[in-house]
Amino acid sequence: MELKATELKSVNLAAEAEALEELWSPRVVARVNDSFVKVAKVQGDFVWHAHEDEDEMFLVLKGRLRIELEEGAVELSAGDAFVVPKGIRHNPVADEECWIALFEPVATTHTGGETNERTKSIQDQLRGA
Amino acid sequence: MELKATELKSVNLAAEAEALEELWSPRVVARVNDSFVKVAKVQGDFVWHAHEDEDEMFLVLKGRLRIELEEGAVELSAGDAFVVPKGIRHNPVADEECWIALFEPVATTHTGGETNERTKSIQDQLRGA
Repeated sequence: MELKATELKSVNLAAEAEALEELWSPRVVARVNDSFVKVAKVQGDFVWHAHEDEDEMFLVLKGRLRIELEEGAVELSAGDAFVVPKGIRHNPVADEECWIALFEPVATTHTGGETNERTKSIQDQLRGA
Repeated sequence: MELKATELKSVNLAAEAEALEELWSPRVVARVNDSFVKVAKVQGDFVWHAHEDEDEMFLVLKGRLRIELEEGAVELSAGDAFVVPKGIRHNPVADEECWIALFEPVATTHTGGETNERTKSIQDQLRGA
């Protein structure tokens, strides 16, 4: 995904998240240097995982998200951002439907060191980009 | 600025922007890998500039922002994001007060290749962080 200089197009993060049909299936909506901006629609538990070499920022667009960590949990409402430092095991949980944006390196797999039925390939996350 | 694993603290981007007293004076509120997340309160014209080696993402938190580019302008409302590709000259303009978040490499100076009275040092942008 390469932004062209002539591509004078903004992206509304919430609208992109709202349009998603599948839960826990991030979609890349922008690239900034070596990072992707992704949106996702989430509900329920995800999976405990860690990204060994990369921090990951969560930004809640709508609803509430709880990020469980081994030493506690962080509760996020719309407009709240939280950075999970690299190497820290975490599990995002949303009791009700929640829309989020993620900022993470292009190289990051969203399930970290875990690969399971929830793992989406980067190709899949780039759909429509 | 180093996020500690024990620092289970989220940041509300709009609240951080609202708290700023000076216009066009970005404040670092988070670090994600080699990028800073900054917030700023803006109104009026900024300055035409380019970042030779770095893309820069703008996310509007409140109000409206127009990003003027040599080939046109992009109008952003709350929730809209736009990536100014590296090397592209741009000038952010807000007719009324606007709160924004910026996502850019740690190395980026906010006035790009220009240094003028509006240039804030990274030390200044890290105040309180």
